[in-house]
Amino acid sequence: MAVTLAKRMDSLRASEIREILKITQREEVLSFAGGLPAPELFPVEELKVISVKVLEEMGREALQYSTTEGYEPLRKKIAERMNQVFKTSVCADNILITCGSQQALDFSGKLLLDEGDIVLCESPTYLAAISALKAYGPRFVEVPTDDKGMIIEELEKMLETQKGIKLIYVIPDFQNPTGKTWSIERRHEFMELVKKYEIPVIEDNPYGELRFENEILPSLKSMDRSGNVIFTSTFSKTFCPGLRIGWIAADAKFIEKYILIKQGADLCTSMRSQMEIATYMDVFDFEAHIQKLVTVYRKRRDVMVETLGKTMPQGVTFTHPQGGLFLWVELPPYMKAMELLKECLKDNVAFVPGDSFFPNGGVENTFRLNYSNMSEEKIIEGIQRLSQVVKKYVMI
Amino acid sequence: MAVTLAKRMDSLRASEIREILKITQREEVLSFAGGLPAPELFPVEELKVISVKVLEEMGREALQYSTTEGYEPLRKKIAERMNQVFKTSVCADNILITCGSQQALDFSGKLLLDEGDIVLCESPTYLAAISALKAYGPRFVEVPTDDKGMIIEELEKMLETQKGIKLIYVIPDFQNPTGKTWSIERRHEFMELVKKYEIPVIEDNPYGELRFENEILPSLKSMDRSGNVIFTSTFSKTFCPGLRIGWIAADAKFIEKYILIKQGADLCTSMRSQMEIATYMDVFDFEAHIQKLVTVYRKRRDVMVETLGKTMPQGVTFTHPQGGLFLWVELPPYMKAMELLKECLKDNVAFVPGDSFFPNGGVENTFRLNYSNMSEEKIIEGIQRLSQVVKKYVMI
Repeated sequence: MAVTLAKRMDSLRASEIREILKITQREEVLSFAGGLPAPELFPVEELKVISVKVLEEMGREALQYSTTEGYEPLRKKIAERMNQVFKTSVCADNILITCGSQQALDFSGKLLLDEGDIVLCESPTYLAAISALKAYGPRFVEVPTDDKGMIIEELEKMLETQKGIKLIYVIPDFQNPTGKTWSIERRHEFMELVKKYEIPVIEDNPYGELRFENEILPSLKSMDRSGNVIFTSTFSKTFCPGLRIGWIAADAKFIEKYILIKQGADLCTSMRSQMEIATYMDVFDFEAHIQKLVTVYRKRRDVMVETLGKTMPQGVTFTHPQGGLFLWVELPPYMKAMELLKECLKDNVAFVPGDSFFPNGGVENTFRLNYSNMSEEKIIEGIQRLSQVVKKYVMI
Repeated sequence: MAVTLAKRMDSLRASEIREILKITQREEVLSFAGGLPAPELFPVEELKVISVKVLEEMGREALQYSTTEGYEPLRKKIAERMNQVFKTSVCADNILITCGSQQALDFSGKLLLDEGDIVLCESPTYLAAISALKAYGPRFVEVPTDDKGMIIEELEKMLETQKGIKLIYVIPDFQNPTGKTWSIERRHEFMELVKKYEIPVIEDNPYGELRFENEILPSLKSMDRSGNVIFTSTFSKTFCPGLRIGWIAADAKFIEKYILIKQGADLCTSMRSQMEIATYMDVFDFEAHIQKLVTVYRKRRDVMVETLGKTMPQGVTFTHPQGGLFLWVELPPYMKAMELLKECLKDNVAFVPGDSFFPNGGVENTFRLNYSNMSEEKIIEGIQRLSQVVKKYVMI
């Protein structure tokens, strides 16, 4: 076309992987590729009651434009819940409601990034955070990451030597894609550094409440003395994605800027959806609902871990997540997950090759498995199929 | 704060006017300042039925993540309705569902604008389009505009002489803020030029279906031979804003790029809201609903125009919109609308001073009145109060 698009569009391309994954939507494919919560656990019946109640009691307000920052009672409930679960000290004024937490990532790029700025992130990191931030033209520098989080010495080296670091993006709880969780010590060390260098941190925490064992660890935000941690989360995993309600929790200095961004970007989030979630939390037992999810997902994780253990050949390793939706597999270094996927699709089983989760690419022997969106029987069947294919390629 | 924000944030500031307008939310103020549709006309009862029906019949799908482009049956219905009402020839593949049409504007900036690029727009133009596009750092050049639309000779002069024009933004039907509508001849002449220069055009059309008399004019999109017209609209004015459903209708070459942008920006729009509107259109009479709105808004426009005619002093002129929500008042050149507003607020009546609708400012003797969100009695009372204040300052 003769029309000239903005330069940033050069870096926004349809990913090859997305095209391949379209095949995984065929009914006969057992797909561990998506990141979907289990729809059979959505509170459909409860929402029927709630949606009528909201329309009856607050119909006109629910269907009108709302304030950009969001529905005050919901923002208050979110703040209270965060303080209880994640040990923060936030109030309604620290909360901006967004259209899912994905929107919080887009807004964060808009707020913080000029072209050429550096974003530090875990290696690997969340695929769609890369695409959201990429639109603002940054360079991604991956911080080496072990089972306990970012490696602090490596991070400090970067903070000392690299110019133009504008943002550190992390997912400390049940990370997407690895399922790993940062240790409490690592959190403290990380926050010491952040305080020293005054770099904004996005603590992306969509899965934190889905913990299968032990206590929820204090969030980075709870250790934040400089006010530079921007916490983002969502009801997509604990309630349902279809209402598109996420949030940003941050210091007022950030929130007032985010509000300006949201005004320009989409004016406001659906008032009705916000009222529904707030009303649900009043009328039903949100905590009990989350426990129901945890029970089901824990079993699915158990079954996946167990089947992987039983069927995968030596040389293949995998994580044992304590919560969340994902598990990460590492193949022997001579194997390529993309090639493996093509073979697996012939046997109607699918996953996401890990390469896309490394913003600078180059790691080809890993893949991500999702266990939240499949029955235990199908998980067993799917992992068995997958292991069969892997076995063909592993040299013993 | 020590943190450095992105450069673009310098231009995104809370507007003085927004602060002043907060006062207008006091109950005793008769405010013509907002742009809200009438909440008493929202289909609250119908939505009660529909929301239960959607949850019953498609609950799990409604509450899950959806495809980025949107719910196919709704995209089809939108395309069909556009072809019927606005004489276009689009199909579902030309439609992307957005979170209100404001999101379409933000995405268009992301798609088309690099820093320093030029956006041509009517003078005045829609305030929130200015804020959406501003985030991408363009320069706005206002094209002189008369009662029939952009003045073609002026537009051509700009297209010939200015470098870096990347976008023309127009609202040909019942423009916000003026209420003016482009003539059919002007539309044809405009489209001739657009074809010649191959510049993308956003035809923003949120009000087009709210026509009070005569026939709806063919849209620019219907005259588009080069595929460069990007049509944006919304259900916010014809149904309700609270579901946050708008859309972009454009050539596939644009839509595939917009889809990539939306993936990064918020993944998808609420599937449930989309299903609800589609189901509403199946079960109820959407056309009849629009006619109900038209009847009420027409009366409110009539009453406002009549009262202005009876009460405003000589030297004050105003538009007579054939549809939409807004009317535009021009004061004698020695008067300042912002000063007038401050006086009016003492008498508990409000409007939006026109200056904010000129991206480069400098026009101080105009203001915008909204008539959709107030009863006929209150419109009479409010306009009388307003005219009383104006009279004090007009020199005869």
